[in-house]
Amino acid sequence: MDKIFASIITIGDELLIGQVVDTNSAWMAQELNKAGIWMNHRTAVGDVWEDIWKALDEESKEASIILITGGLGPTADDITKPLLCEYFGCKMIVDEGALANVKNIFEQILKRPMIERNLKQAEVPDGCTVIQNKRGTAPGMWFEKNGKIFVSMPGVPHEMKGMMSDYVIPALQKQFTLPFIMHRTLLTSGIGESFLAEHIQEFEESLPAHIKLAYLPNYGMVRLRLTGSGDQKNKLNEEIEKLFLGLKKRVADWMVVDEDKPLQQVVGDLLKQKKQSIGTAESCTGGYIAHLLTSIPGSSEYYKGSVVSYAYETKENVLHVDAQTLATVGAVSEETVLQMAKGALALLNTDYIIATSGIMGPDGGTPEKPVGTVWIAAGNKEKLLAQKFYFRFDRQRNIELTSNNALNMIRKFILES
Amino acid sequence: MDKIFASIITIGDELLIGQVVDTNSAWMAQELNKAGIWMNHRTAVGDVWEDIWKALDEESKEASIILITGGLGPTADDITKPLLCEYFGCKMIVDEGALANVKNIFEQILKRPMIERNLKQAEVPDGCTVIQNKRGTAPGMWFEKNGKIFVSMPGVPHEMKGMMSDYVIPALQKQFTLPFIMHRTLLTSGIGESFLAEHIQEFEESLPAHIKLAYLPNYGMVRLRLTGSGDQKNKLNEEIEKLFLGLKKRVADWMVVDEDKPLQQVVGDLLKQKKQSIGTAESCTGGYIAHLLTSIPGSSEYYKGSVVSYAYETKENVLHVDAQTLATVGAVSEETVLQMAKGALALLNTDYIIATSGIMGPDGGTPEKPVGTVWIAAGNKEKLLAQKFYFRFDRQRNIELTSNNALNMIRKFILES
Repeated sequence: MDKIFASIITIGDELLIGQVVDTNSAWMAQELNKAGIWMNHRTAVGDVWEDIWKALDEESKEASIILITGGLGPTADDITKPLLCEYFGCKMIVDEGALANVKNIFEQILKRPMIERNLKQAEVPDGCTVIQNKRGTAPGMWFEKNGKIFVSMPGVPHEMKGMMSDYVIPALQKQFTLPFIMHRTLLTSGIGESFLAEHIQEFEESLPAHIKLAYLPNYGMVRLRLTGSGDQKNKLNEEIEKLFLGLKKRVADWMVVDEDKPLQQVVGDLLKQKKQSIGTAESCTGGYIAHLLTSIPGSSEYYKGSVVSYAYETKENVLHVDAQTLATVGAVSEETVLQMAKGALALLNTDYIIATSGIMGPDGGTPEKPVGTVWIAAGNKEKLLAQKFYFRFDRQRNIELTSNNALNMIRKFILES
Repeated sequence: MDKIFASIITIGDELLIGQVVDTNSAWMAQELNKAGIWMNHRTAVGDVWEDIWKALDEESKEASIILITGGLGPTADDITKPLLCEYFGCKMIVDEGALANVKNIFEQILKRPMIERNLKQAEVPDGCTVIQNKRGTAPGMWFEKNGKIFVSMPGVPHEMKGMMSDYVIPALQKQFTLPFIMHRTLLTSGIGESFLAEHIQEFEESLPAHIKLAYLPNYGMVRLRLTGSGDQKNKLNEEIEKLFLGLKKRVADWMVVDEDKPLQQVVGDLLKQKKQSIGTAESCTGGYIAHLLTSIPGSSEYYKGSVVSYAYETKENVLHVDAQTLATVGAVSEETVLQMAKGALALLNTDYIIATSGIMGPDGGTPEKPVGTVWIAAGNKEKLLAQKFYFRFDRQRNIELTSNNALNMIRKFILES
């Protein structure tokens, strides 16, 4: 079966001066990938006639499917529609469906009279199949030329996503014979990318051509993803599962979870299973661990709260850290982080606790305690573990590394307790 | 003066299957833009030899500067370095600086023995200028060919950003005659982008061709940036200052600060001036406000801590919210958020306090309190204000919107008190 390739063209000056981060492309790529359509290229251009025209020529050389987003707004700088009209040798006509939609949006939702400019939103090149927009005024357009498919959609994420899910992906699946694509992902912690690669080199080299291994490192953790493609779903599934099992065995010592799931969700799921709760006592992470845990919907089931004890005063008055300890060994010490953990366990009355204290930088380091020195405590009322770390990055990254290591410490503790 | 154009090539299969969102390109585009370098195109390709090769050919046709990120890791799927070596007709040699850096990272920081693979990180094509990586093991590479500049950097954001700021941008400024670019930025809050645009339409239309106004919306706030380019520094400076003054007058009602500064730093600077302190009591924001405040270096000067009271129990036991209140009007209410604020003021003993309670979604909404309903309290021991908000986005965005609105409430309160 021939691989079907797609390309994405995102249009808008805002993309080229860095005003917006392009989140559409990643989402579209995921959807294409799930459908068995491959991408080998994507591009971004400004609202410039010749640049868009050139991109259409270039991208359609190798890809069979060209997905275009942006430049469909009602303002002067949005030139995508007239350009496509000329590119495909069409003339503009009013689409009744699109017109009804625009009218409806103004009458029912915006409750404002329409102006000429809005009516223009209902015009489309006569050579395209119109994709009605259930979430906005700009219709999508599906063109076919020399066996290539061009789809133009609005850049507004939820409008584009709606069109992709409701119409574009199903239509592409009808039009092409597509392979099955399967991914299996696992998360490792506590081993660097290169050591991991060394460790599983044989495995990687033994993979068949249609199954690939990807390394995705992120803040002290590495994700490993197996991706396979084939035309027989069951056969591919068996193959991938067998290989994934082998991979899991090889990285067992460092594996956090055998799914594509963030660490904070892994911890949360463990607590849900055990019907147990957790709290945090954060100094140097300043609430970031609490944020990670509460970023998971439903976290209130197991997360009770946190004391962010940034000041000595807060450590003493709220967590009852001994003033003497702070005066002698300081806040960034095993004693302090253990006392923070004990104090928070008592105050928040949770089954498990995480506590952090360190120097995140750029300032505050000393010869004995350089920037990046961190103490983390994790445990429960029976047992508390404390570990010292050194991170050597900028403030934000030190905070993220500390948080991930703290979450991984408590994950191991929960599993062993 | 001729405009200098740059293009960005991002390399990595993970970009083409949507595993990661490309945030590097937006940041790089902003930095280039500030330096007076323009972009009319950017592209993303996978870890595929011929695709990368073709991108190098294509992008260097129109751009004078080609910035490349990704594919420099130590694993098999990272092929950028050998490809560049061949593309520029070089041979691989060990760079002493890079070697010393890799060794230092393993000996001093990772405290692990190096393996062959890591040593490979110190190899570079002999035809390039090495850009040392202060934040990781992969060195950057600067090539010149037919008057075009190619710079290869790691895809890890903080490593790339470090190289761009420390080396690449200054070197490009030396190599090219670039126009003076001046930016003046102000931050507004409490007014939508389109209303703002309507309000300052005349001003925008009156701008000379060499001065542009950019809207940078971000979670309930809009930054306005005036960017001017010219070859006479002083003249340009005068012009921009005069226009910026006019812009400030027009948006005075919504202006937070007339610098490019995050809201949490604006609040922090206010507190530093007044030598006063702040604390937070967070329910729905789950520690995110604490994280924002503590993300600013030196925040320990004014930030004492936070109680993340996610569970009812924590609201009662730690912040002494009345159980009766929670039972009758619930956690998402004016009464509760005011009691949280009072409790936290007493517990943390700060001059100012922020408290939040709401429903961030996707679940937990009711007909009376739909997802996105939020109560925010802000004030001090003498006076507390409470305000109700409705947000209509996903969980993460609701959390960020709540946090920004809370920070802006306390900012106004501090200014008025």
